[in-house]
Amino acid sequence: MSAFTLDHVIESQQFDRDLLELVFQTADQMKTDLYGERRLAKFLDGKIMASLFYEPSTRTRFSFESAMRRLGGSVITTENAREFSSAAKGESLSDSTRIMNGYADVIVMRHNEAGSAARAAEISTIPIINAGDGAGQHPTQALLDMYTIVDAFPGVNDLKIAMVGDLRYGRTVRSLSYLLTKYEKVEIIFVSPPVCKMEGDIKAYLDKYSISWREETDLEKVAPEVDCIYMTRIQKERFHSVEDYQAAASKYILSPELVFAMKPSAIIMHPLPRVDEIPGEIDGDPRARYFEQAQNGLYIRMALLYLLFNKE
Amino acid sequence: MSAFTLDHVIESQQFDRDLLELVFQTADQMKTDLYGERRLAKFLDGKIMASLFYEPSTRTRFSFESAMRRLGGSVITTENAREFSSAAKGESLSDSTRIMNGYADVIVMRHNEAGSAARAAEISTIPIINAGDGAGQHPTQALLDMYTIVDAFPGVNDLKIAMVGDLRYGRTVRSLSYLLTKYEKVEIIFVSPPVCKMEGDIKAYLDKYSISWREETDLEKVAPEVDCIYMTRIQKERFHSVEDYQAAASKYILSPELVFAMKPSAIIMHPLPRVDEIPGEIDGDPRARYFEQAQNGLYIRMALLYLLFNKE
Amino acid sequence: MSAFTLDHVIESQQFDRDLLELVFQTADQMKTDLYGERRLAKFLDGKIMASLFYEPSTRTRFSFESAMRRLGGSVITTENAREFSSAAKGESLSDSTRIMNGYADVIVMRHNEAGSAARAAEISTIPIINAGDGAGQHPTQALLDMYTIVDAFPGVNDLKIAMVGDLRYGRTVRSLSYLLTKYEKVEIIFVSPPVCKMEGDIKAYLDKYSISWREETDLEKVAPEVDCIYMTRIQKERFHSVEDYQAAASKYILSPELVFAMKPSAIIMHPLPRVDEIPGEIDGDPRARYFEQAQNGLYIRMALLYLLFNKE
Repeated sequence: MSAFTLDHVIESQQFDRDLLELVFQTADQMKTDLYGERRLAKFLDGKIMASLFYEPSTRTRFSFESAMRRLGGSVITTENAREFSSAAKGESLSDSTRIMNGYADVIVMRHNEAGSAARAAEISTIPIINAGDGAGQHPTQALLDMYTIVDAFPGVNDLKIAMVGDLRYGRTVRSLSYLLTKYEKVEIIFVSPPVCKMEGDIKAYLDKYSISWREETDLEKVAPEVDCIYMTRIQKERFHSVEDYQAAASKYILSPELVFAMKPSAIIMHPLPRVDEIPGEIDGDPRARYFEQAQNGLYIRMALLYLLFNKE
Repeated sequence: MSAFTLDHVIESQQFDRDLLELVFQTADQMKTDLYGERRLAKFLDGKIMASLFYEPSTRTRFSFESAMRRLGGSVITTENAREFSSAAKGESLSDSTRIMNGYADVIVMRHNEAGSAARAAEISTIPIINAGDGAGQHPTQALLDMYTIVDAFPGVNDLKIAMVGDLRYGRTVRSLSYLLTKYEKVEIIFVSPPVCKMEGDIKAYLDKYSISWREETDLEKVAPEVDCIYMTRIQKERFHSVEDYQAAASKYILSPELVFAMKPSAIIMHPLPRVDEIPGEIDGDPRARYFEQAQNGLYIRMALLYLLFNKE
Repeated sequence: MSAFTLDHVIESQQFDRDLLELVFQTADQMKTDLYGERRLAKFLDGKIMASLFYEPSTRTRFSFESAMRRLGGSVITTENAREFSSAAKGESLSDSTRIMNGYADVIVMRHNEAGSAARAAEISTIPIINAGDGAGQHPTQALLDMYTIVDAFPGVNDLKIAMVGDLRYGRTVRSLSYLLTKYEKVEIIFVSPPVCKMEGDIKAYLDKYSISWREETDLEKVAPEVDCIYMTRIQKERFHSVEDYQAAASKYILSPELVFAMKPSAIIMHPLPRVDEIPGEIDGDPRARYFEQAQNGLYIRMALLYLLFNKE
């Protein structure tokens, strides 16, 4: 198997097919060991992870911190990292990163500005993992999404996937699109209201890698033909009026009727949290994989932490 | 000894006399081991506790987290859990609980809405411990209160206890009342201003279990006759005017004169924090047990955590 | 070597020359062990540190928590300790300290009021470490500053040091001044705008210990003659107008020209965070020691934690 070559985890584009397979196999191993007979070894005993969250995201933070703990490591954590660069004190991200280099062995950083993780990585002597930087990337989310797809469709051949909802501002669907180019014969259907269409840069990237895509507005039409529906939340603030929003949102709800129309082998994904776009009554359907998907975040983050410290 | 039969710790009423004795004996053992020759075994090594506090309560959180650490376990923690269910994101408690099920081995939950812990327990695959849910219950506080009483009066026979202060809104006196019904010949005297009287539901519950109770307004009259005075804070916002409040509050201060009048064998309890209702000069009196009571919270929480993971 | 005699770490004046040498040698050992062949022993395995921060200071908190983790100990932490003594609940620092005594083995306290750490130490049965109390002291900062100086100038003989910037309100330069009196033939030059001059109490203290000092306003004049420049931030709010501030601040910037004029053997220190007073282009100069200085905070805090639990 190929070696893990990354010093930092900053964006989806860093992962080629070999790296993806290494991460996914390691995640498989983590999952097996976590619930298996043998006790998981404390691989990261004595290592310290700094959770540096410039904006709170309890869910993501807990997932990383749980991963670190499961591997025997310890954590120092803040949801107030913004204080580091407060107007009053005005410290640069670069200085903060240098300081943290002395206190921890790996930094998980959530920031409100796109590009922050990359800037920190430029000067950091310890690994930086990007846990979301504003409108930028959230690569571990993309990896857990892709891992969930690979788990359901090993090989990912001839996969037809619908991405639904707010595609224009949705970080997850953008990052996942990058990763899908690593697989063959993938077909993406972007399903959204006209105001939330996928941006041109992603479409150009897909074209470059010969990934076929098309755009639709009608979820009802698309549901029966795809192997995977990736739902996202439509955000109120994108619309000019409440009426416009409600009209749009109601069209992108995965109702029991729509689920009934889906292929039996298809899967339903959602980055969570959800609001109304997937009703609770769907949760029991074997195609609903969004909780499993969230859980996969733990294995993926365990795998990344393990690999960053075991690069032979 | 009876086995620990609970999957979750949600309310005082779950504990019958056998369970109480099991918890208290385990707490005794924890206390002994913690300060004994032998080093306390890391019973919960590798286990993760999630502190999910929808409202901050540093004291309670620290008590739980210290208990988990003492047993060798680790902790992921937030005082911003409300963010999970923020208006903007609108996630349900049920979804949050499911997600946390994947990241932790036990959840300690503090919530602002009564009934939240019970709702989380309904769908959780890992133990939920209620660390206070709004106007609802705070069962571990009730257990540590009862443990403090049992420690002073083994058998709890013929115990006469005065509950003093804000009985109407005080969660602790309500929960403790439930537990006192498990013992024989207990007599409760509710001492409060008229606007803060104990509610009817508790009185009915006591009647059902043949626990004798009466109401008084004069602490001076009651102090000499009881084995235990359980003081609570009277809250300003219950009164129509500042004058009314001050008049009431001044009557429910445990002055040195009142303490002098108490039985030598009696004990003084308070759930803390206190304001003026117990002056600092009382702290040195051997009857003052409120700091010991707070400390007992650690042993009780260690016992519960231990038992939840060791149900043979 | 002398034994560590302190029960608490509250102020710089507690440290005599022998204690300083013990702390610095222990810090040296920590540094060696941390990066050496041998794995650092888990000296504080099973011990719990409570980080009780009444005001947030992520940097200081992380430094202490990293130190505790490196020694194998665990941590319970809050940046909301003020809640303990909230107006609504009104608990005294004394009560909070007593409660924490039951939950932890050592308390690291950051408080907004001078004298708080000393008051907590009066009643605490476990060690208190002052992590800064308002306008009061921040002794571990002074120790790491002194350690950085001793590292560069073993023996600290004939040291000439310039303290630059806001000397009137700067806690670090005040605390460091106390420690410098423990060494011989030190000479201090206070370089500041007239409104930010060092206070009289420190000058009197230096006189008492026969430490020579003088005041200057011109950094350009002083830079070439000193062994150490200790820069601090000048704070806007000290000045009557923005113009006054800008005029003053621009005079206390350590420009490349000034650094070029410094002795080759001299060092540049700063407690960080910095704003403009040291431009980034200085960072690569071998005389720039401020990041190393911050890093030394880890070794000093590890040393103090170790010594507090190993007082033979």
